[in-house]
Amino acid sequence: MSESSVPSEPFLATLAITGVGLIGGSIAAAARQRHVAGRIVGIGRTEKRLAEAVEAGLIDEGSTDVAVAADADLAVVCTPVDRIAQDVRALAEVMSETSLLTDAGSTKRALCQELADLDGVHGPAFIGSHPLAGSTRQGFEHADPDLFDRKVCVLTPQSNANPTEMARLETFWTALGAVVHRRTPNEHDQALARTSHLPHLVAAALAGSLSEEDTELSATGLRDTTRIAAGDPALWVPIFQHNSSAITTALDRFQAQLKEFSDGLRRDDGCALQKLLEEAKRKRDGLG
Amino acid sequence: MSESSVPSEPFLATLAITGVGLIGGSIAAAARQRHVAGRIVGIGRTEKRLAEAVEAGLIDEGSTDVAVAADADLAVVCTPVDRIAQDVRALAEVMSETSLLTDAGSTKRALCQELADLDGVHGPAFIGSHPLAGSTRQGFEHADPDLFDRKVCVLTPQSNANPTEMARLETFWTALGAVVHRRTPNEHDQALARTSHLPHLVAAALAGSLSEEDTELSATGLRDTTRIAAGDPALWVPIFQHNSSAITTALDRFQAQLKEFSDGLRRDDGCALQKLLEEAKRKRDGLG
Repeated sequence: MSESSVPSEPFLATLAITGVGLIGGSIAAAARQRHVAGRIVGIGRTEKRLAEAVEAGLIDEGSTDVAVAADADLAVVCTPVDRIAQDVRALAEVMSETSLLTDAGSTKRALCQELADLDGVHGPAFIGSHPLAGSTRQGFEHADPDLFDRKVCVLTPQSNANPTEMARLETFWTALGAVVHRRTPNEHDQALARTSHLPHLVAAALAGSLSEEDTELSATGLRDTTRIAAGDPALWVPIFQHNSSAITTALDRFQAQLKEFSDGLRRDDGCALQKLLEEAKRKRDGLG
Repeated sequence: MSESSVPSEPFLATLAITGVGLIGGSIAAAARQRHVAGRIVGIGRTEKRLAEAVEAGLIDEGSTDVAVAADADLAVVCTPVDRIAQDVRALAEVMSETSLLTDAGSTKRALCQELADLDGVHGPAFIGSHPLAGSTRQGFEHADPDLFDRKVCVLTPQSNANPTEMARLETFWTALGAVVHRRTPNEHDQALARTSHLPHLVAAALAGSLSEEDTELSATGLRDTTRIAAGDPALWVPIFQHNSSAITTALDRFQAQLKEFSDGLRRDDGCALQKLLEEAKRKRDGLG
């Protein structure tokens, strides 16, 4: 390797993060630890929390005024999915024409459609991101610089996305440790409905159907199966609403599987139940 | 404390275990490590596996002939739930009148009814046990002496159970580290349908409804939610069959919850979804 392959400057002079919670804080921590950004600014809704994030060493400067991001090369919006579009627009108004905007939201179709005009031709470009990493914990106090390490991050460019901007965004997430995959916004939402949104709904329905007196006789299997139901409802309601049609399709498919189990139970059909459990085990073992 | 409270002899001279797999092997390992039994004999179906369990130091002697348990004070049957009754009967024929028989099966109503005549009046007594501990791994190679440590073990005595035998059984499981709870066989099966059997069915139906191409975009939430679907189908089919009526009741209740989510999605009713997720989170947080 030639010396020129070792960057003397960080990849980004200034990184802006709107929403310095668990995800935004972890992006800041990872960018800091991996020397991805020379300076990190945070935008939030309360001065106090931002001051605490500065105090914690996660960001260099915080403000409730989006103008703090004026010099940023790249901004990541880490707010709930029903707030992302407006937060991206606010940044686009103050950031330079050559800057790049992205997000960390769990749904992409509605968002990328809404922001399709931010194509980078006459202003900053927006390309959607979704790092498949998280926690049921909330707040930057639980930020983890390794949260994205070897985790998938899905990028969802529109068909007219600038390849140079795509390469920049891919470099950014790769530098944070993530493994980048590319999907259309619609492909992303269909797949995530099955692998994330439906599992969340199912875990919540299972937790919701428990009796208080069941707590005493619960074991690790139940705790694992319902773990994600402890997630923040305020984050999940808009995810459900933004992707309701794909989730409904996934739910129908799941209910068809449930019915097969239910029929097997009612008919006392051991062979049918065995076959269903073997198929489920085969698919589960495939997840690693 | 007087010296007499320190036992000079192990609680059991001889412990017999039928089915030396993950659970049976872990009982042996725990009994060995905690000096609960002076001698441990294993009964199984293949000489080779039993010889390997002796070689591994889990049991002192193994045999495919139940007569090896003739001198045992206590026997634990750790075979799949559709084999427990016959394995208990086989032991009852060779063991002494003062001996105690139990099991480690996940369903109790059918079993305890079938073995109700083993009340200890004219021969060995049987009292059902269900340690709420396990693993998706199989085989005594994964035996863990701490598998029962601070885990719940449910004892399900019939109404005519001898209090002395109950106390003995409670002492046994407590000595292995477990926290003993007492339920009627029917109460046990109703509760476990909700806290274990339904979650297993739901995890399997969720895994079963995945597409092969979903693997790439799956995250830890999906893996947690479906983890138990990797369990051995041969163990779970008889559990489903033995407890089908209680599982069907629990499944109906779960499906009613699913329908509420589904209605909320179709109506785009954010308030309803928020309420459902909050209730689920409250119950999940209660599991600790």
